[in-house]
Formats: sequence, C-alpha cells, structure tokens
Amino acid sequence: MPDDRRPTRLVASLPPTVPFVAPEALERRRGAKLELRLGANESAFGPSPRALAAMRRELERSSWYGDPESYDLRNALALHVGVPMESLVVGCGIDDLLGLTVRTFLEQGDYAVSSLGAYPTFNFHVAGYGGLLEAVPYAGDRNDLHALAEAARERKARLLYLANPDNPTGSWYDAEALEQLLNELPEETLLILDEAYLEFAPESGLALRPGDPRLIRMRTFSKAYGMAGQRIGYAVATPETIAAFDRVRLHFGVGRVAQAGALAALHDRGFLEGVLDEVARGREEYAAAASALGLHALPSEANFVAIDLGSPERSRTVVDALLARGVFVRRPGAPPLDRCIRVTVGTAAERRRFAHALESVLR
Amino acid sequence: MPDDRRPTRLVASLPPTVPFVAPEALERRRGAKLELRLGANESAFGPSPRALAAMRRELERSSWYGDPESYDLRNALALHVGVPMESLVVGCGIDDLLGLTVRTFLEQGDYAVSSLGAYPTFNFHVAGYGGLLEAVPYAGDRNDLHALAEAARERKARLLYLANPDNPTGSWYDAEALEQLLNELPEETLLILDEAYLEFAPESGLALRPGDPRLIRMRTFSKAYGMAGQRIGYAVATPETIAAFDRVRLHFGVGRVAQAGALAALHDRGFLEGVLDEVARGREEYAAAASALGLHALPSEANFVAIDLGSPERSRTVVDALLARGVFVRRPGAPPLDRCIRVTVGTAAERRRFAHALESVLR
Repeated sequence: MPDDRRPTRLVASLPPTVPFVAPEALERRRGAKLELRLGANESAFGPSPRALAAMRRELERSSWYGDPESYDLRNALALHVGVPMESLVVGCGIDDLLGLTVRTFLEQGDYAVSSLGAYPTFNFHVAGYGGLLEAVPYAGDRNDLHALAEAARERKARLLYLANPDNPTGSWYDAEALEQLLNELPEETLLILDEAYLEFAPESGLALRPGDPRLIRMRTFSKAYGMAGQRIGYAVATPETIAAFDRVRLHFGVGRVAQAGALAALHDRGFLEGVLDEVARGREEYAAAASALGLHALPSEANFVAIDLGSPERSRTVVDALLARGVFVRRPGAPPLDRCIRVTVGTAAERRRFAHALESVLR
Repeated sequence: MPDDRRPTRLVASLPPTVPFVAPEALERRRGAKLELRLGANESAFGPSPRALAAMRRELERSSWYGDPESYDLRNALALHVGVPMESLVVGCGIDDLLGLTVRTFLEQGDYAVSSLGAYPTFNFHVAGYGGLLEAVPYAGDRNDLHALAEAARERKARLLYLANPDNPTGSWYDAEALEQLLNELPEETLLILDEAYLEFAPESGLALRPGDPRLIRMRTFSKAYGMAGQRIGYAVATPETIAAFDRVRLHFGVGRVAQAGALAALHDRGFLEGVLDEVARGREEYAAAASALGLHALPSEANFVAIDLGSPERSRTVVDALLARGVFVRRPGAPPLDRCIRVTVGTAAERRRFAHALESVLR
C-alpha cells in the first residue's frame, strides 16, 4: 500500500547492525547451551549476598516504579565517591549513559573520536545520533592518547571516548597520563572516561573532579559488583551537564530492584575485595596458562585477559573451535587486536576448564 | 573557565522539566512516607506469584546481561498475541518505547499530535527530540478522535498519540471507532496506540495487525501485571518498523530478571483474571464513594477513576489536603480535566481508607 510513514532520514540511512551478538544468540545458533560463558566480561562471582538479599526484599515491591531521581542511591554514591549529588545521574548501565551523552552533546555531522576496535556501543550511538566517528589505531596494544588528542583537534571533535582500564586490551593509564591528555584536548572536546573496569585497576586513577567541564566519568554495577543483568550504572559530571541530561533522559528507566541492589552492593566492601582478589588471581592463571602454551597474554588491569594468538586467522579459528565446544570468548573486531582472544576471568573451576579447552583446541 | 563544551542547540533550548514528580519526591518534600500510594496507577495486587518465583530464581543470575533480543519473551508474546516475532520489540516500559518511536519517526521541526492533558511523557519525548506538539482538547471527557485526525492533517503530523483506555480519563474507544480514526489519518501520520491499560478494558479492541504501517501498538507489564518497577513493555509494529528500531535502540537495556518475570507473568492467566475482577470491583466502589459525597466519577475502563470535583481550584485543594494526610493521588494538569482527581484502584482496605480520607477532606 502507498505509504509516507517513513523513519527519519537519519534512521533510514543506518545499516542494520547491533553492537554485540549476545551469548543467548550464540546458543540459539548452536542449538545448545554454552558450557562456559566467558565472553561478555560478566562477573563469575555474582552480586554480593547483601545485594541479593536487598533485591529479594525489593522484588515484593515490583509493582511500584523506581524512584526516577534514584535519590537514595545517588545520596549514597555522593558519600561513596565524594562528589555532590548534583553531579550524579543514574542510568541503565554505561550503554544507556553513553547514548545519553552522545544525544546531549553531539550535533548531527559532528565528530567523535575513539580507538579503532574500542567499545562498539559508543560507535553505535554515535552513528545512531548522526555523528561521525574518527577511529584512532591502538599503538603497542594501548590507547594512543597523544594520537587521540590530535584526532580530536583535527576533527574538532565534541566527544572523545576512552575506556580506562581499556576494553578489549585491559591496559591502563594512571592519573598523570590522563591529566596530560586533558591538557592536550581542544576547547570543544568532552572526554568520556568509561570506568566500567575501574575497581580492578591498581589505583583509583584520576581524582573525581565534578566541576571539571572537560570530563564525564562513567561507572557501573555490571562488572566488579556482578549486576549486569540489573542494568544500573552512573555518571559523574558537572551539575550543568547533569541538568542537561535531566531535560531529555528516560526518567523512569532504571528498575526499582536494581536501585535497591546497587545501594546494598555499595556497602558490602568485604565482598567486593574478595572479588577483586579472585579476579587478580584469575588474570595470573590465564597468563600462566597462555605462557604454558607458548602464547603471550596482554597485561590486564580488568576482569578479562586478551591472549595473543599471533594472527587474525588463528584467533578466529580458535574462537570458533572454542565455541564448537561450548566455550564462549570474544575476538576483538579490529586490527591489531583481532589477533587476540579476550577471555573473562571465571571461577577457579571455570578457569581450569578454559585452560584445558584452549590447550585441546590448540593441539 | 572558558569552555566550548556545550550541549546541542536542541538540548540547550529545552526548559528544565520532568514528566512527573514521583511519589518518592513527594515523600522527601513532606519528610514522611506516604500512607496511601494511589497516584501512579501502579497495581495494588503485585506481580503474579509465578512471576515472583521466576524473578527470585533469575536474581541468582543477575551478573549476566539480559538477552538483548528478548527472544524467549518475544517468542511467548508472539504466541500470546498472535503476531510474528519480527513484529515485536521489547523495551524498558512504554516510556522507553515512546522515546524510541519519536526518535525513529520524528524529524526536528515535525509535528506530533496528542490530546491536551494526555500522557506527559509522550510530550517530553517530542520536545526532547526537537518535535512540535499540537495538543487537541478533550471533548466530553474523551479523546476527540475526529479533531485529532483533523489536527494531524492540518499539521502534517508524523505521529498521533492515543491512549486507549485513556489516561487520565479512563475512557475507551472500540474497534469500530479506531478503525474510523485510522481511515481519517493522512498518509504521513503514524498512530501510536498506547494500550498500557488494555487488560482492564471491556474487550480487546482493535485486532492486532502487525502488517499495518499506520499503527504502532504499545503494551506493558507495568499495570495489570503489576511489574512497573521492573521496567518492561513491548510494541507491535510492522517488521520494517521493528528493524528501524533495532538500528538505534539500546540493545542491552532490558533487565534479565524483568524478562524472566514477564515471561512467567504471561502464563499466569488465573492471577491476571483475579486482578481484573478486583479492579472492576474497585472502580465501582470508587464511583459509589464519590456518589455518596455528591460527586460524579468519570466512567473508567482502566485501573483508576477520575472523580469530578467541579472546579480546578477545588480539585487542587483536595489533592493538597489528601497529600497532607499522606494520601497520594494525582490531579490532571490541563483543563477541562484539572477539575478532577485521579485515584488508582487499591486493595479493598486501601479503597476504604481512601474513601474515608476523601470524605473527611471534603467536610
């Protein structure tokens, strides 16, 4: 039938794509469950028992909307990270906050800068809001901070995305390096610092400066806190930026149970420390397992390790062979990291099973 | 400090506003908890015990992301409502799906049409994506379908929003009336049929026609299913529209526990029937209570009732006086409905307490 009900020019121009193929989609393709789910950097250690108890209690109030201001959680976060509540916004994980930031700051046709092969959901949002992406190659398997700043200058970029610790490399920059990056940024560029893996890093990095208009920090309960399925994270920015977000964000987007769980998780420091210890141990085990097979593991400060297979062909073969055995890991999508596989730190038993699977695939 | 990191022209132009002041915000203002939470059309009857059990089980897997395709739920919904999976998308409630639809179909400067005083979150999204809103007055305390179609024609509107059953009136149009509206729509107008309250209606209304490009239907687990805090709803549209959504939507936005709960809720027909019976009884009780106080209740096919207080001044006084007693109900924001208060059907005990509170406030 003749019809003028078309999507916008922008949406009509976009290719059909998704940021990630999910583990559930892989299971449907194989027609069988995965044996080891080590490809999405989910926590093998679950949420804290206190968070679970809080969520179990709050389930009974599932018929009530969550507080759109996430007041209690923001209040607790303000104390926890030491910034005013007015500098905090809560969203459905960093994915949501990235979309919100792109929407709020990027005009159609403006540039954003990221590393080539970095987190694809940022790129997805840039395209989805009509922005252009300048992708800067990794150098020495790390983000090339100087080249990123240079690209931002050349492109008059409005946004620069940097994950620290980085995904998929696991590499990490300290406060001094980030400070220098900030000083190299042009006046119009806002730095999005994705700190999804911050808890796993050797130090807390750049101090939070909620009054610094050059910066938006993003953090999540999806990784160290083991609550990816609850979809909850937060951003720290200037009060002016938070107020801008409030004018357009989905106010009733974050779940009630998620908020209760995050609040409780924040107060279980002991559990978190245990997770961090176990993840550090797991990284060492993966590095040792790689080494025993004549492979090199990239140094990681996150909850995953990238293992260098030497060539994109070999890493693809290995990922496919692992998947055929029900072992889900990821292969970074862009050179030079596509020569690697990225494996999430599992439980001790999962780590052993992964090492065996990798060994038998390589033989 | 001098700084060029500004929001987009659009976001900078928006006023600071939120779609709703939440009950939690009212509690913080009063410095005390609410006694009766009857203002947000949340279910007083909670989620089904089967949904609760499923959610309790799935909580243990909170560290895993939810399936971004919501495959199992869409598969069940496809059978449940009788449309192909390709015509279904799952989002964080209708609020989320409204934002997605506005983003996908409304160019900046395009018009959307709604009733004056209808659901404010639609208006919020229209403004947030740079659209213009034409608001058509209610007539006889119902949506004026003919005037809505006429406004769509005049404004060459891309979107027409209609809630059926309607909020805040509770009024309802049958399939024949909606069919006529569709036939009156200009070629460029897409009808968003918000069916959040559909389960409470006397019949299922317009048949689902997933191939009809004039229509997007939105439904939710927030109301009859009692899962507002879980943030989960769905839309039925053409496969082409769903594919357009997939190019821009937040793929990992819907919680894992929410999906498990919705799936289980769908299969507990007995529980749902009980809720619908109780809501029908509650509406009658509210109408009788109003009548006993010399007031008129608008006929409602939803889980709330609008009670006519005669004037905007009186309805405001009553809402404020109720709130001072800890009773949270809403007053519609625009004439002619601002002469009413809107009260959600509570449990039998809550209904009695509301009737007493209203009586003592009016004395």
